[in-house]
Amino acid sequence: MKSVAVTFREPRNRGYEILIQPGLLKGAGAMIKRRFPGHSPFVISSPRIWKLWGSAFKGTLKHLVPDGEKHKDFKEYGKALAALAAFKPEKKPLVLVLGGGVLGDLGGFAAASYQRGIPFVQIPSTLLSMLDSSVGGKLGIDFDTPQGRVKNLVGAFYQPSLVLIDPLLLSTLPARELRAGFAEAVKTATLFDRALFAQMETNAGRLLALDTAPLVHMIHTCVAHKARVVMKDEFDVKGGRALLNLGHTFGHAVETASGFGLLHGEAVAFGLACAVDLSARLGMADPGLMRVEALLQRLGLLTRLPALPMRQVMAALSRDKKFENGMRFVVPQRLGHSVLLPLPKRSLSLVRDIIQKRFDPLD
Amino acid sequence: MKSVAVTFREPRNRGYEILIQPGLLKGAGAMIKRRFPGHSPFVISSPRIWKLWGSAFKGTLKHLVPDGEKHKDFKEYGKALAALAAFKPEKKPLVLVLGGGVLGDLGGFAAASYQRGIPFVQIPSTLLSMLDSSVGGKLGIDFDTPQGRVKNLVGAFYQPSLVLIDPLLLSTLPARELRAGFAEAVKTATLFDRALFAQMETNAGRLLALDTAPLVHMIHTCVAHKARVVMKDEFDVKGGRALLNLGHTFGHAVETASGFGLLHGEAVAFGLACAVDLSARLGMADPGLMRVEALLQRLGLLTRLPALPMRQVMAALSRDKKFENGMRFVVPQRLGHSVLLPLPKRSLSLVRDIIQKRFDPLD
Repeated sequence: MKSVAVTFREPRNRGYEILIQPGLLKGAGAMIKRRFPGHSPFVISSPRIWKLWGSAFKGTLKHLVPDGEKHKDFKEYGKALAALAAFKPEKKPLVLVLGGGVLGDLGGFAAASYQRGIPFVQIPSTLLSMLDSSVGGKLGIDFDTPQGRVKNLVGAFYQPSLVLIDPLLLSTLPARELRAGFAEAVKTATLFDRALFAQMETNAGRLLALDTAPLVHMIHTCVAHKARVVMKDEFDVKGGRALLNLGHTFGHAVETASGFGLLHGEAVAFGLACAVDLSARLGMADPGLMRVEALLQRLGLLTRLPALPMRQVMAALSRDKKFENGMRFVVPQRLGHSVLLPLPKRSLSLVRDIIQKRFDPLD
Repeated sequence: MKSVAVTFREPRNRGYEILIQPGLLKGAGAMIKRRFPGHSPFVISSPRIWKLWGSAFKGTLKHLVPDGEKHKDFKEYGKALAALAAFKPEKKPLVLVLGGGVLGDLGGFAAASYQRGIPFVQIPSTLLSMLDSSVGGKLGIDFDTPQGRVKNLVGAFYQPSLVLIDPLLLSTLPARELRAGFAEAVKTATLFDRALFAQMETNAGRLLALDTAPLVHMIHTCVAHKARVVMKDEFDVKGGRALLNLGHTFGHAVETASGFGLLHGEAVAFGLACAVDLSARLGMADPGLMRVEALLQRLGLLTRLPALPMRQVMAALSRDKKFENGMRFVVPQRLGHSVLLPLPKRSLSLVRDIIQKRFDPLD
């Protein structure tokens, strides 16, 4: 079994383990009972995931949240809390989130705030949540404002007690969501790990076919990188976590402008290609960075998109909270190395041009 | 100016200051601007307090929450978040809570969860919140369950960035609420401080008349004691904070059974008298503890109550979360020294008898 230890100087939750192993789900119930003897587990999942994988927790009380980002809202948060409040555990309650990023964010925030914080165990069901949201302790819900719904506007920094990654769960993930998940792995390899990047190039076909050996290696390596970054900057104030936004500034803009018709990972793939373009336009790009777009394509990800209304793209871009103090972009210089670059406001036209060049005309 | 420094090993919020000085409110706006230069303050207050004291923050955007514990609920929490989300600050938002414990708990939780935590400054307006809830970082809202509303069921541990205590605000506090606040000070003196206890005996009349010198001394001493305890046990897991529950187990039971017709401090006063009774019945009480009831009475607090339905009292008692692992009572042994005592379930009849003996018949 491979594992990553995450430690903090935070006294309530000094650290937790992320375990990665095919078949882990099967023994998860027993493992959780063994590791949290004073606790009664309460599952938060989605109807789809529960139907596919819930038999591992037969007899455990559960609360199901409908699939989709649009349900990651204040209303569903209240319902999850109400379900917890109606749960009459024999022992102390423990939240077990079985699902993707939306469920992890919402169920995790419910766990973080119920009784001012009870333990929660995450069993991510999507590639994206295995690689990304299960590490780092950023939880939250989207919230409606007069300017529209804002992602993760309300939430908490709160670490899980245990994360169990079972790659077998990916066998029921829709192909499109699987491909989208790989974008996050390409991002991590581009940021930190030339060797992983080369392995992903070699094994692109096997990865898409969910071949266990390269898949477990990729997940483990990505999770270890993210954990390393997060441990140094738990509350996202020192700048270390900012690098993880590679491709995300561009990505968020098209994701929002598409009305969330694009999956997050698909938007990130597009954003990674844009970030390489930006580096090239600034004369900073090592030629090896051309491999980023090629790898994304081999993993079935689009690096060009049908045209979106530029006014909406630019509006989403300038609403991005990363622009609070001027624009800051993560710019890759070579495979394995990126920098955080403040850009003057007038660079917006450059950014606009980069995005527009990657739009295919609609007709 | 007197101040107490509170420090944690928690990396996000290593510490904050509690400043105590009559007249502090007047300069609070300027002080907050100076201390938090990158932030736009947003006031959360109640209509009553805002009308009395809001002029100190003229021109600052605000959100008002109706007075009373019944409004410390999920709905008002959502409204406070929506107000924050509609607030378009020029700089980063900062929550400034001007009010009592209910507002501090609710507004603080909104600050703790908005954008996963923004700074908040507390300006407590009641004696109870000056002594108690402004120190310790326990925030939260009450939440409805199938068994009724549960106090503080949802919330966070999150420290304020600054607490400004201005005893002049007590001049507009209703007399009954002022008296109730003194119960918390009697509790602290009984727990930790014979000298403070003696001073409060000497100055009871002056304290009730809000004479500045003894009042500031009492507040400062109590806050310093609470800060000392809280710093050692931020997340209430090591047992240190449990001592602060002296009188609260009895108190909560009658507070709940009264349908919250009793103020929290009034219930605590009754509970303190019961705790001394318990100590006496267990043969543990030093004769000096008789002074507790006398001091409570001199401060205008009742140590006997009109009879409440015992079935409801006992039901509230057994629902108390402190009973999760058997009953634990804080038992005073002498002035300045109490112990945490596990009692077997069969002691419930002793507890019942103690409470009942302090009920006056209704007719």
